[in-house]
Amino acid sequence: MLQGLKFEILKSNFEENLDKSSFKSPVDYVKETAKQKTIEVASILADKQAPIDLVIGADTVVTHNNVIFEKPRDKTHACEMLKQFSGSIHTVWTAVVLITPINSTVFKGDRLCAEDERFYITEFQESTDVMMTKLTPEIIKSYVDTGETLDKAGGYGIQAIGGSLIEGIKGDYFNVMGFPLHKFCLDNLYTKLVNKLFIESVD
Amino acid sequence: MLQGLKFEILKSNFEENLDKSSFKSPVDYVKETAKQKTIEVASILADKQAPIDLVIGADTVVTHNNVIFEKPRDKTHACEMLKQFSGSIHTVWTAVVLITPINSTVFKGDRLCAEDERFYITEFQESTDVMMTKLTPEIIKSYVDTGETLDKAGGYGIQAIGGSLIEGIKGDYFNVMGFPLHKFCLDNLYTKLVNKLFIESVD
Repeated sequence: MLQGLKFEILKSNFEENLDKSSFKSPVDYVKETAKQKTIEVASILADKQAPIDLVIGADTVVTHNNVIFEKPRDKTHACEMLKQFSGSIHTVWTAVVLITPINSTVFKGDRLCAEDERFYITEFQESTDVMMTKLTPEIIKSYVDTGETLDKAGGYGIQAIGGSLIEGIKGDYFNVMGFPLHKFCLDNLYTKLVNKLFIESVD
Repeated sequence: MLQGLKFEILKSNFEENLDKSSFKSPVDYVKETAKQKTIEVASILADKQAPIDLVIGADTVVTHNNVIFEKPRDKTHACEMLKQFSGSIHTVWTAVVLITPINSTVFKGDRLCAEDERFYITEFQESTDVMMTKLTPEIIKSYVDTGETLDKAGGYGIQAIGGSLIEGIKGDYFNVMGFPLHKFCLDNLYTKLVNKLFIESVD
């Protein structure tokens, strides 16, 4: 996924409990959650004086008829979500936040991070429409019983058995998996990396 | 990919050198190649009296401005293909052929296979539009030098580094990888398997 970069995965402790009704649109909500998650991780690293090249954070939500769906609470909730998505189009939104130290020689950030002035911040978002096939109650139950639904926004994994339930998508597939690869690489990794590590590493 | 089925991969010896100009459309060409590949494998198994439940064969081509593209001959050819696809939409076509013995108790085939009457045959096709981003000569060279292009129709792998070059798709992502998962599962695996192995296996 990260195209040759060496990386470490750190879980954010941000609670992800922002009040959805206080945002004008689903995209504003997912942007703010992604920003808070990423700043939290970057701040902890900076407090520990850990060397940071680039902190990449993301959050994904699904919208259907203007309602935001995140990870299902349990199997019953997952079945309810999938029943709603059955035979219709939903949209997957991912917001990505990139944070670098202000003195970075690796990555050209977009602007100073107002919440923590030790950092530059770069933000972008992507959305993809997903057409889910018409599901019978039998297929929903069988699928949820595979156990792959609970840790995924929208209650399915397009990259696994859930892929069989998807008639088609319009947009970036990797955004549905939770990370918009094309925008990350073309608009950021290939252009804002000061030393163009990727281009050199494969040459 | 094959959703819990136990399978073995067998390479077809069919030469894949049908005369493209003798077919009315690219889809007719890819259907015939897939059929010949699959019948060849099934016939060899039947000649050896190997037990067959289901033989699944597929072939994938790319079309761009009505020209058929298959695997590139070499790196130079891969660069030429990608230069043509740059900044435009191409279409990925996959034809799938399913073959079962006429006395199968596993899978309900669609019709008798005229070329080898020991078998029933089921055929279907899928197409997906792919928008490739505008590529610089530097990116094309770097990408082809990763070595992931030569064994892939169209000269790129959407499931690997090539995914970063794809702005978006319209249709089934797995069809671009070379196998239309949704149509295989929903129209065939979930409906024509006599004992519904998948549904039972995950319950």
